[in-house]
Amino acid sequence: MLIISLDYIGTFAFAISGALAAIDKKLDLFGILVIAFVTALGGGTLRDILIGQQPVGWMLNIDYLYLVLSACVVTYIYRARLMAWRKALFVFDAAGLAVFSILGFEKAFDLSLSAPVAILMGVISAVFGGVIRDILCNEIPLIFRREIYATACFAGTVLHFALRDYLPLTLLTLMTILFILTVRVISVKYSLHLPTLADRD
Amino acid sequence: MLIISLDYIGTFAFAISGALAAIDKKLDLFGILVIAFVTALGGGTLRDILIGQQPVGWMLNIDYLYLVLSACVVTYIYRARLMAWRKALFVFDAAGLAVFSILGFEKAFDLSLSAPVAILMGVISAVFGGVIRDILCNEIPLIFRREIYATACFAGTVLHFALRDYLPLTLLTLMTILFILTVRVISVKYSLHLPTLADRD
Amino acid sequence: MLIISLDYIGTFAFAISGALAAIDKKLDLFGILVIAFVTALGGGTLRDILIGQQPVGWMLNIDYLYLVLSACVVTYIYRARLMAWRKALFVFDAAGLAVFSILGFEKAFDLSLSAPVAILMGVISAVFGGVIRDILCNEIPLIFRREIYATACFAGTVLHFALRDYLPLTLLTLMTILFILTVRVISVKYSLHLPTLADRD
Repeated sequence: MLIISLDYIGTFAFAISGALAAIDKKLDLFGILVIAFVTALGGGTLRDILIGQQPVGWMLNIDYLYLVLSACVVTYIYRARLMAWRKALFVFDAAGLAVFSILGFEKAFDLSLSAPVAILMGVISAVFGGVIRDILCNEIPLIFRREIYATACFAGTVLHFALRDYLPLTLLTLMTILFILTVRVISVKYSLHLPTLADRD
Repeated sequence: MLIISLDYIGTFAFAISGALAAIDKKLDLFGILVIAFVTALGGGTLRDILIGQQPVGWMLNIDYLYLVLSACVVTYIYRARLMAWRKALFVFDAAGLAVFSILGFEKAFDLSLSAPVAILMGVISAVFGGVIRDILCNEIPLIFRREIYATACFAGTVLHFALRDYLPLTLLTLMTILFILTVRVISVKYSLHLPTLADRD
Repeated sequence: MLIISLDYIGTFAFAISGALAAIDKKLDLFGILVIAFVTALGGGTLRDILIGQQPVGWMLNIDYLYLVLSACVVTYIYRARLMAWRKALFVFDAAGLAVFSILGFEKAFDLSLSAPVAILMGVISAVFGGVIRDILCNEIPLIFRREIYATACFAGTVLHFALRDYLPLTLLTLMTILFILTVRVISVKYSLHLPTLADRD
């Protein structure tokens, strides 16, 4: 129940983030739908293909398509308000990231893949939709920009795995989602980033 | 029988469209083969991976590889004529689009996926090969340009689904393929496009 | 035994090649890991997805992740030396190419796919990791540059298939790997390339 609601929330948040990026790029209505769709469902699709769960998740539950459609309608109607509130894209993106990291890990771990691989599946579920969005919009993938991004997903998923035997799963899931969201917000607010060789050399 | 001939025609048309794009980009012979190959078989490959039909279709029937090879040879020999006739690329592309939309829908629908998902599989089969072609040739994907493109595939596939219980499948398939081709030709001739926010705001 | 050692060597070589490209692009530590990872494991991942062997190879054997990690650490420590020796990137890339072509062919051929398809799987295993590396680093894919590249993989894999009934597999594998490496080195040294239409017209 919780898992499904969270998955729906993450899908909706990522679809809005994609639709906003497409509107910003002045794409037509079809372009907005496509970008919203790949942003919201691209990460889970790659995860399902890698672990061999096909037809992939959203093909077996029509709700996901309707969620993406509704997110596009909502974004379209409230676009002025959302664009004015410049951080909207970022907040929705961060929410999607947090939810998909943990749910992606759980899905892979349930298939008895090893913990490092399941953690990687969590990160891929979270970041890959955004990578396709950025490639299609011809942007440098956000994932390679300087703030902590996939690293937040990675840290949160590792924490989730580490505490998995000690806390009830529902509580832990909510906690680690909040953790990723917080790390992401703080890292953008204070422009935290991983060291590069340019910093050192 | 009809399905197979149409599939071969679509593959051949898309391979020519890809080879022409690669010649236009001054790629070497290997580049021509690669672009023809991904244009012709990329969409069906993604569809088969998403629905879990692996090894994907063209791997089990060697004809597809030979079709792509022959299309490259034909395009290479008649390149002057084909390039002079500037609309060649567009016409072959439109034919591939029309055929793959309907066949992709049928393949997914036969696996008892829901109609909206099967329609989406039709559109993906049709447009995805061209998207990879454009990304590899470093062009803005044709799918995002202003004329009606994927929308033609979508409309034709929806029509196909709507009339499926009322007409014999062979007749209907030919009709909806012709419909998509016509929509595409008219939309390019008269520069029809979907509304964008730029039009409104 | 030999297959596994070669696979490890190819993975390590490709991971170093990817890490060097990422350092050259001034990506942060996370970017280095991602590029090393997709370069080393991207080709085999696509091959496994196309033939329907999921979860894909590296997900079932944690060694591959550790190999990529170690390659990143080694590249990071010796980066000055490796970058100074300008040809390092090229040599590691060529080694990965050679090994993955032959191993990719063998894996597909063992599944009783036809020889042309298995040869293609060999070439895809070899070149696709580098294609993703180049797309993510925003470079024109090396595969489309003028020197003999995928053609070397193709020639070597065809040779491997042609001699497969006449030589012991271990000897043949080593020979054809050496052949691909040699063709690649010679073609770069003497700037050999496939004919293009620009040469002729």
